Amino acid sequence: MSRTVIKGDLCWSRGMDELNTVQNGYLVCEDGKIAGVFDRLPSRFAQDPLQDFSGCLIMPGMTDLHVHAPQFAFRGLGMDMELLEWLNTYTFPEESKYRDLAYAERAYGSFADHLLHSVTTRASIFATVHVEATELLMQKLDDAGLCTFVGKVNMNRNCPQYLSENSTNRSLKETERWLREIEGRYRRTKPILTPRFIPSCTDDLMYGLARLREKYEIPVQSHLSENYSEIEWIKELCPRSRHYGDAYQQFGLFGDGYPCIMAHCVHSTEAEQELMLKNGVFVAHSPESNMNLASGVAPISRYLDNGLKVGLASDVAGGSHESMLKAITHAIQASKLRWRLLDQNVKPLSFERAFYLATMGGGAFFGKVGSFEPGYEMDAVVLDDASLDHPQELDVRARLERAAYLADDRNITAKFVCGERIL
Amino acid sequence: MSRTVIKGDLCWSRGMDELNTVQNGYLVCEDGKIAGVFDRLPSRFAQDPLQDFSGCLIMPGMTDLHVHAPQFAFRGLGMDMELLEWLNTYTFPEESKYRDLAYAERAYGSFADHLLHSVTTRASIFATVHVEATELLMQKLDDAGLCTFVGKVNMNRNCPQYLSENSTNRSLKETERWLREIEGRYRRTKPILTPRFIPSCTDDLMYGLARLREKYEIPVQSHLSENYSEIEWIKELCPRSRHYGDAYQQFGLFGDGYPCIMAHCVHSTEAEQELMLKNGVFVAHSPESNMNLASGVAPISRYLDNGLKVGLASDVAGGSHESMLKAITHAIQASKLRWRLLDQNVKPLSFERAFYLATMGGGAFFGKVGSFEPGYEMDAVVLDDASLDHPQELDVRARLERAAYLADDRNITAKFVCGERIL
Repeated sequence: MSRTVIKGDLCWSRGMDELNTVQNGYLVCEDGKIAGVFDRLPSRFAQDPLQDFSGCLIMPGMTDLHVHAPQFAFRGLGMDMELLEWLNTYTFPEESKYRDLAYAERAYGSFADHLLHSVTTRASIFATVHVEATELLMQKLDDAGLCTFVGKVNMNRNCPQYLSENSTNRSLKETERWLREIEGRYRRTKPILTPRFIPSCTDDLMYGLARLREKYEIPVQSHLSENYSEIEWIKELCPRSRHYGDAYQQFGLFGDGYPCIMAHCVHSTEAEQELMLKNGVFVAHSPESNMNLASGVAPISRYLDNGLKVGLASDVAGGSHESMLKAITHAIQASKLRWRLLDQNVKPLSFERAFYLATMGGGAFFGKVGSFEPGYEMDAVVLDDASLDHPQELDVRARLERAAYLADDRNITAKFVCGERIL
Repeated sequence: MSRTVIKGDLCWSRGMDELNTVQNGYLVCEDGKIAGVFDRLPSRFAQDPLQDFSGCLIMPGMTDLHVHAPQFAFRGLGMDMELLEWLNTYTFPEESKYRDLAYAERAYGSFADHLLHSVTTRASIFATVHVEATELLMQKLDDAGLCTFVGKVNMNRNCPQYLSENSTNRSLKETERWLREIEGRYRRTKPILTPRFIPSCTDDLMYGLARLREKYEIPVQSHLSENYSEIEWIKELCPRSRHYGDAYQQFGLFGDGYPCIMAHCVHSTEAEQELMLKNGVFVAHSPESNMNLASGVAPISRYLDNGLKVGLASDVAGGSHESMLKAITHAIQASKLRWRLLDQNVKPLSFERAFYLATMGGGAFFGKVGSFEPGYEMDAVVLDDASLDHPQELDVRARLERAAYLADDRNITAKFVCGERIL
C-alpha cells in the first residue's frame, strides 16, 4: 500500500450546504484515496512520508465540467454577440484551424499548460471535429497528469462547409476510428461522445451516435437550453419534441442509465428539469459564459434544492478564463443579479454552494471525487495565500472565500490527482 | 520645457464610442501633457529622451471614481448580505480599527501599494471618520505618486457608537481641523468632502458640510440610490424630498456649480437622472459591488446616451478587487444580464464604452485626463501582454480587449502620472 500525508489548512465540502475546515490538519491518502483528515497525526501514520504545507490552504481539486479546448486561443475576445452569431463569426473559423496539427500543437500546448497551472484537476472537454488534433489534445492532457474526458466533436449541418463533416457516415466513421485508435492509450484521459448540439447534427447522425454510445459504453456531453434563439430553432428542427431535452431523449442521447453532461440549462422548462432529474443528467453551469453571451442565468439554487446534479464550468471561450475560482465568484454574482432582477423565489448561491459545485458537484461525474471525506479519490490543490496580505489574522473559512475572489495561478503551490503530485 | 517620448502600441478613447489604436507609435509628452501621438517620430522630437516599450500596450491611466481605502483589508470577504446589513456586520467594525494608527499604517500601506501596482492612476477615495488615519492615507498615496481625492468621512447617526462622531459640532470641527492641517501638504492628494450617505448624517451636519464646501471650495462625494431599502429609508428621513438626489440637493450637496461624485445610482428615477444631468453630477458606476451586494445594475448606456457624466469604480470592498480592468469586464457582464433579465431597451455596454468609462469617463472629474488626445494630462500605463500567449498574431484592439479579461499586475511594466514615471 502506498501512503502519503499532507499537512496544512484543509477545507472541503461534506454536502452542498456544509463546508468543513481543519486548521493545521493532516490529510492521509492511501493508494490514491482519502483515508481521513486528522487534527493530530495518528501514530500509525507517523512513519509515512509527509509533505508539509503548513500555513497554506488545501482544498479538493476542482472539476471544470464544460470547456472548449480549441476556443482557449480566443478567450477574452469577441464578447459582443449572442450565441448563434458568435459561433459563426468567431468560433467556427477558429475551430477550423485545428486541421493543421502544427497550430493544434501550439494552441493545445498552451491550453494544457494553463489547465495544469490552475486549480482544475478534472475536466470534461470539447475538442473539434478533427481526429488527429483531438488525439494530440488527449495526449497533452494525459502527459500533464490531469484526469479528463475529451470529445471529438460531431457536426454535419448548419456550420461552414470548411468545418462540417458533411455526411453522417463520415462523421460516424471518423468517430469510430478515433475511439479505436485511442483504446488503452492514456492513463487518465477518456473519450466522451460529443455531438456539438442538435442544430449542428442531422437526425440520423444523432441516432448513429446513440448506437456508438451503446457499443462503446461511453458517456455523452452536449449543450442544452443556453439561448432563446437556439431553443426556438430546436422547435423547428424537432417539431415532435416536447422540449429541447426531450429531443435529445428521443435520439437516445440524454443520460438515463449512462453518464451525460448538458452544458448551460439556462432556460430549462420544468418538464425539462424533471427529465434531467429522472435521467441523472449533469448540469454544467457556466455563469461567466452565460453573462458574456448575454444568455441569462440558470436557477442553480432551485436545481440543487430539487436534487439535480450540478457542476460548475468555465466554458472557455464563452468564459474568458480557465480558473474555477473565478467560476465560483461569477456563479455567486450571477445568481445575485438573477435574484435581484428576475426572480426573488430563487435564492442567490451561498459561497458554500458555489464551492460545492466546483468540487463535489462536478466531481461526482468522475465518481467519488471533490471532497476529503474517506473513500474519495485524492485530488487536492495547495494554495499559498500569504501574498493576499491582511492586517490581522483570518480563519480558514474566511481565507478560502477571499482566495476565491483574489487568488490566481501564482498562489498554487502544489496539486495532486489520484494521490499523485502533478505540480 | 521637459519632454518625454514613449514608444509602443497605443490605445485610447476619443469619445465614448471611438477607440483609437496606433501600433508601434510614439506618444510625446510636454510638461506633463500630451503633445501628440505619431506613427513616425517627427524629427523635432528626435533628440528627446525616448522610453521604448515596443510590443507592449500603452493605454491611458485609469480612474477609480469610488473606492473605500479602509475596506481594502476585507475585500473578498463577507459577500453574503445586502447593503445595510453588510455595513453593520462587516464595514463599521472594520472601519473603527482606523482609530489605531498602527493598524492604519499596515492596512493603508497595503492599499496604497496595491493601487500603485494596478492600472489606476487617479482615484476618489473614502477614508474613515478618523483625521489622523486619513492624513496618513493621503501621505501614502502622495508618496506613491498617484493623483487622488481623499475624504475624511462624516457620520454622526445610525452607526455604532464606537464609530459615530456623535455631535454635529464635533464632526464639523474635525473636518475643518483636517482641511487646515493638510493645506499645502501634498503634491497630488486633494481633499474631498465625504458625508457617508444621508442616513448616517443628521440634517444639520449636512447643512454644515455645505457651508464648509463653500468656504473651502472643495468637491463632494457620497452614495446615491444603491439599494431599495436604503431608498425607502431616505423617504422616511427626508419626507419633503422628491427623490434621494433631491434630498442632497436640498442640503446643498449635489453638485450644481462644483464637482460632485455620487456612487452607484443603480435605481435613480428619471427625475433624479435629470437633476444629475442638470447639475453635472458624476455617476461612479460600481458594477462588481452592485453584483456582490445584490443591489442591481445601473442603466449605464442610457446614462451615456443622455449625456450624464459617468466613470467606473471598484468600490472596494463592495467590490473585491482594485483592478479597473476587472471593473471594465464586470461592467460589460452586468450590463448584459440587465439587458437579458430586466430591460431590452437599454443596450449592453460595448467594450469601447466600458474602456471609455474607465479612462476618459472618470478621468473628466480630474480635468483633461484619460485620453491621449493633445492637451490631456499624460497618465499612462504600459502593459506587457506577451505572457498572454496566442497561437497567432492579434491586432492592438483585440489585444486590449483580451488584456481587460486576462491581464493582472504582473503585466504592468510602467506607469506614468502627469508625465512622471511612478512605476
